[in-house]
Amino acid sequence: MSFFGSSMHTLDDLFVHGLKTIYYAERQIAETLPKMIAMATNRDLRAGFELHLTETENQRVRLEQVFRQHGVEAAETTCPAIDGIIKAAKATASDIDDKHVLDAALTFSAQLVEHYEIAQYGTLVAWARELDREDCAVLLAETLAEEKATDDKLTQIAEARIKNANRIILTMVCCRWRHTQPNWQLRHYPWSNPGDLAGRVNRLRRARFYVRRLLAG
Amino acid sequence: MSFFGSSMHTLDDLFVHGLKTIYYAERQIAETLPKMIAMATNRDLRAGFELHLTETENQRVRLEQVFRQHGVEAAETTCPAIDGIIKAAKATASDIDDKHVLDAALTFSAQLVEHYEIAQYGTLVAWARELDREDCAVLLAETLAEEKATDDKLTQIAEARIKNANRIILTMVCCRWRHTQPNWQLRHYPWSNPGDLAGRVNRLRRARFYVRRLLAG
Repeated sequence: MSFFGSSMHTLDDLFVHGLKTIYYAERQIAETLPKMIAMATNRDLRAGFELHLTETENQRVRLEQVFRQHGVEAAETTCPAIDGIIKAAKATASDIDDKHVLDAALTFSAQLVEHYEIAQYGTLVAWARELDREDCAVLLAETLAEEKATDDKLTQIAEARIKNANRIILTMVCCRWRHTQPNWQLRHYPWSNPGDLAGRVNRLRRARFYVRRLLAG
Repeated sequence: MSFFGSSMHTLDDLFVHGLKTIYYAERQIAETLPKMIAMATNRDLRAGFELHLTETENQRVRLEQVFRQHGVEAAETTCPAIDGIIKAAKATASDIDDKHVLDAALTFSAQLVEHYEIAQYGTLVAWARELDREDCAVLLAETLAEEKATDDKLTQIAEARIKNANRIILTMVCCRWRHTQPNWQLRHYPWSNPGDLAGRVNRLRRARFYVRRLLAG
């Protein structure tokens, strides 16, 4: 730790430094999100990223208001943390050739960004209150709530993706199992003829129906 | 995004990549924490960092167990995200010359690390379940719970630091206000002589007592 040329002497200096850091980070995130939207296959994931992009732009405007209220000019300070997070996301994405695996990796990268923002805004709210800047704290807390909601949404998307994958696998397993059971379909669906195509389609539909009922129950 | 030389084709590949990343990150964190302990002034903060260091070492051992259960050799993959977070923490700390401000910055850096780990382990638990590796998921969820508890502890330390600072400021303000009131101490404490040192100490003690009662009420 070097004491030479220290630029932060008070909590106020640290607070302004934090504002400048997240102001820079929000711009980096806004520049990265369109690339993530282009890469995503899952419809919900893409919609989530699009919403996050709109929110990010509003959050930068809100940060400019905080700067004004605090009486300092809006400016950016390079943040190696967000640079590293974005670099890691790009490196992982470029190493994947399957679109479903890529969706999983993109969801993780987005959640890492969200957690970075939650830690940043959470701390800024606390520092604003310590500095008796309730006006700034209210605005920053608004963004914090948005970030937490986005993180929850990403978790839901990831869980839905996993449930959907499990559903498809279970349906396929059940169908295959039924095909291995001799006379199974005649015993249970005597109206269906195992030989013809219509009967096969009928059995597949019924198998799917039972699997869905099993999963829902 | 480049598809040439892609190394991850399945979710299993992505899971192993995630394990290697966090295995690398845990070593980086274990190497950084002693420096943070040396810099911290607040006793609770230092104790929190020491506990986190012990936990980090156990978490690396737990990760080795996950590698073994999954049938792959424990190895590290460089992670630009944790490198960036640590670089940002060092840069901020070297810019601060006040020990209380430094404590606030260190608490923030530690929370950023915690949130990085929460996002990583949270995703790894979900992927392990998707891959039907409940044995790995259980171990990873154990670490996730530890990380969340450490983050809560850091929030408590930050809040206690703020409360303590406010308490000191309020006491000082009240004492100064009392000194500006003519005959205040004679009216309320006729036994004290405002001229002598013992009287001044007495008034200071009583002021502190009232401020504490006010804060407690």
